[in-house]
Amino acid sequence: MLETIGYLAGFLTTLAFVPQVMHIYKTKSAKDVSLAMFLLFTVGVLMWLTYGVMTNSFPVVAANAVTLLLSLTILFFKFKYRNPNGI
Amino acid sequence: MLETIGYLAGFLTTLAFVPQVMHIYKTKSAKDVSLAMFLLFTVGVLMWLTYGVMTNSFPVVAANAVTLLLSLTILFFKFKYRNPNGI
Repeated sequence: MLETIGYLAGFLTTLAFVPQVMHIYKTKSAKDVSLAMFLLFTVGVLMWLTYGVMTNSFPVVAANAVTLLLSLTILFFKFKYRNPNGI
Repeated sequence: MLETIGYLAGFLTTLAFVPQVMHIYKTKSAKDVSLAMFLLFTVGVLMWLTYGVMTNSFPVVAANAVTLLLSLTILFFKFKYRNPNGI
């Protein structure tokens, strides 16, 4: 039960970035998405990944590897579709 | 060392949402921010919080309590500054 909640929590907080990637891809706009947020988030996820590897925790490694890819995709889009009037 | 990486990772992935909240607050626009992302993310964080309470893990509870507040603030802004042309 407890483990299921942990896995479901990790699944949801990872899955959440998929609609954000799709949203930016469809609208070709990412001006309201904060660059600082995704820079800090990507570094944080990279550290979670390191933590997972060092503690041999497969769920932490798996969830954060996927989140890292999605977070890097959003950063890529942020630069690709940057708006000169955006922040 | 290992514990420090974990705390720093949690600090960064929580702190990351602050610039996103400030970005939306300043621009009064959240159309590029995915509603589905923050709905899924908020439910996920709520489950992490439950997991933290059930496992008596203070760092998990603290980080996710703060992230939940920030995530709910972004959802509130998403409705407050909704754009009829946005998705």
